[in-house]
Amino acid sequence: MSSTVGQVIRCKAAVSWEAGKPLVIEEVEVSPPQKMEVRVKILFTSLCHTDVYFWEAKGQTPLFPRIFGHEAGGIVESVGEGVTDLKPGDKVLPIFTGECKECRHCKSSESNMCDLLRINTDRGAMIGDGKTRFSKNGQPIYHFLGTSTFSEYTVVHVGCLAKINPEAPLDKVCVLSCGISTGLGATLNVAKPTKGSTVAIFGLGAVGLAVTKKFGITEFVNPKDHNKPVQEVLVEMTDGGVDRSVECTGNVNAMISAFECVHDGWGVAVLVGVPNKDDAFKTHPINLLNERTLKGTFFGNYKPRSDIPSVVEKYMKKELEVEKFITHKVPFSEINKAFEYMLKGESIRCIISMEN
Amino acid sequence: MSSTVGQVIRCKAAVSWEAGKPLVIEEVEVSPPQKMEVRVKILFTSLCHTDVYFWEAKGQTPLFPRIFGHEAGGIVESVGEGVTDLKPGDKVLPIFTGECKECRHCKSSESNMCDLLRINTDRGAMIGDGKTRFSKNGQPIYHFLGTSTFSEYTVVHVGCLAKINPEAPLDKVCVLSCGISTGLGATLNVAKPTKGSTVAIFGLGAVGLAVTKKFGITEFVNPKDHNKPVQEVLVEMTDGGVDRSVECTGNVNAMISAFECVHDGWGVAVLVGVPNKDDAFKTHPINLLNERTLKGTFFGNYKPRSDIPSVVEKYMKKELEVEKFITHKVPFSEINKAFEYMLKGESIRCIISMEN
Repeated sequence: MSSTVGQVIRCKAAVSWEAGKPLVIEEVEVSPPQKMEVRVKILFTSLCHTDVYFWEAKGQTPLFPRIFGHEAGGIVESVGEGVTDLKPGDKVLPIFTGECKECRHCKSSESNMCDLLRINTDRGAMIGDGKTRFSKNGQPIYHFLGTSTFSEYTVVHVGCLAKINPEAPLDKVCVLSCGISTGLGATLNVAKPTKGSTVAIFGLGAVGLAVTKKFGITEFVNPKDHNKPVQEVLVEMTDGGVDRSVECTGNVNAMISAFECVHDGWGVAVLVGVPNKDDAFKTHPINLLNERTLKGTFFGNYKPRSDIPSVVEKYMKKELEVEKFITHKVPFSEINKAFEYMLKGESIRCIISMEN
Repeated sequence: MSSTVGQVIRCKAAVSWEAGKPLVIEEVEVSPPQKMEVRVKILFTSLCHTDVYFWEAKGQTPLFPRIFGHEAGGIVESVGEGVTDLKPGDKVLPIFTGECKECRHCKSSESNMCDLLRINTDRGAMIGDGKTRFSKNGQPIYHFLGTSTFSEYTVVHVGCLAKINPEAPLDKVCVLSCGISTGLGATLNVAKPTKGSTVAIFGLGAVGLAVTKKFGITEFVNPKDHNKPVQEVLVEMTDGGVDRSVECTGNVNAMISAFECVHDGWGVAVLVGVPNKDDAFKTHPINLLNERTLKGTFFGNYKPRSDIPSVVEKYMKKELEVEKFITHKVPFSEINKAFEYMLKGESIRCIISMEN
């Protein structure tokens, strides 16, 4: 057992003190894990657009100071009361949404939207006691998505940790804890295209690229190259519509296009991108009556604890080309560079290494 | 072979001369079937709301004189060139939509929306030569839905005829050629509720009642009894939403309610009712992202020729309580009474007997 068990750990964390301002590497205190919590030593984390979105805090209630970060891999340092699934030394991926294994959703084979641990972007504290585990000089620092992986140590609810193959290289599989699994699951679990199907993907960030699985994109369509709605362009290209579409931008007009470009009779449109609060999805109902299906997915319909270990196994069996998503690497001290790469549209995934 | 083969048949038909005016029983001429067509002696027909809708001709281009009727059962009198699947004497149900067995839809296991013979409410003639097979004193009388079963004899494309069990009683199974199969298929082929699921049905005409299969309705909710949207009432009644919903009215607000009342994580809403041309289906996209599914169905996803014979078999095996849908019977001479019963909301299905 680590000598830090039960102790406050002092370590480095990248603290966001103010919306849109560079993170500051600070020495913070990380409290021991409480009931059903686990303290994790983060080894690698990566930057996802959702971190940037809440860091910019445009349109949401700002919650600062906060430690962002939710795509990561680490090692269990110690566990709190009641944790039996994990022990110190286990390799884990923290996940931004959880699986309590006891609610109706967790017991349903169809849902991954756990009643207890479902994503909550407004919450800045642990659900057990409503307090933060991070502080600096007595000032609490808020959590983000229950993960806050931009810290050498973090505290996470046991239901938000996937225990993975101890052989898995964390500098690679850390990216499986959010965007890539989301896109992959949207294809494998929801859209389920059969061999030879046509699939339209809207948005080619990490999520959209993961939808393609093995980078099998044959055509690129830029809506700006056409003076009619892109759904009409796609319907013409495919003699009536694509078999499947997957929307990965969150733009409501792209959602409508993604739905209206699928073939009648059998087309399925899958929505992945997160919309704005005031958006309205609007279509003529006859588009539905003509046997099109519209469905949404959250985290690719994967249950974090039950399913993510098998996604890591796919990588281990060389069925997933995770390396191709990793365009940049920076040491923790240069974490702000990761933000710059993403804001400039230069990176797909930038790995942030905590140890050098 | 009947002595009428190859001859014009003079017989009685209920002709609609003008929108909304009582039908008139007339002696009409029915031409022999042409290539890929079949002439059918109708024994029983029933009235469906779609007949009434186009007879009223509110909001559509009126097409008169016309012979309505599309739910029926009959016997093949003679067949045209190229028809090999049917022979005189075969018992058939005419279907308002067809199955050519050669297009992409017919070859897909998922679709029943045949490219060639898909429902066309505007067409008033046969697709082979664009002419009518009905006339009176040389004046052509338009067809309806390719079936025009309010006539002692009618001519139908072979792709719109389901050959059924010769033992099946046509005065009962004639109602399986439209509404009841639509509702039944919406449940069995599309909504697919598992045992113990909660299912909300919007609209309890023949289609909605067929959705219930064995009349297993436990609760009735009248939206007018509540001063909040009915979807909120249903969500409260069911601790988060129903597992499945099926919309059978065609009212776009009911469609939105039907979608928004299903449970997140696994809920599936199925749209059956036909909307108006200018309707817009509108919802917040987060309702989709939270893992709800919205899909439409046409004729319960049944392929007319391939699947409807097996629906008749369900009746023969006493798995379908068809009799309970039949609330009225009239002789052909009193066909206008069937319209009255429906307009007053008194009937579910009124059987019109051609022979007495």
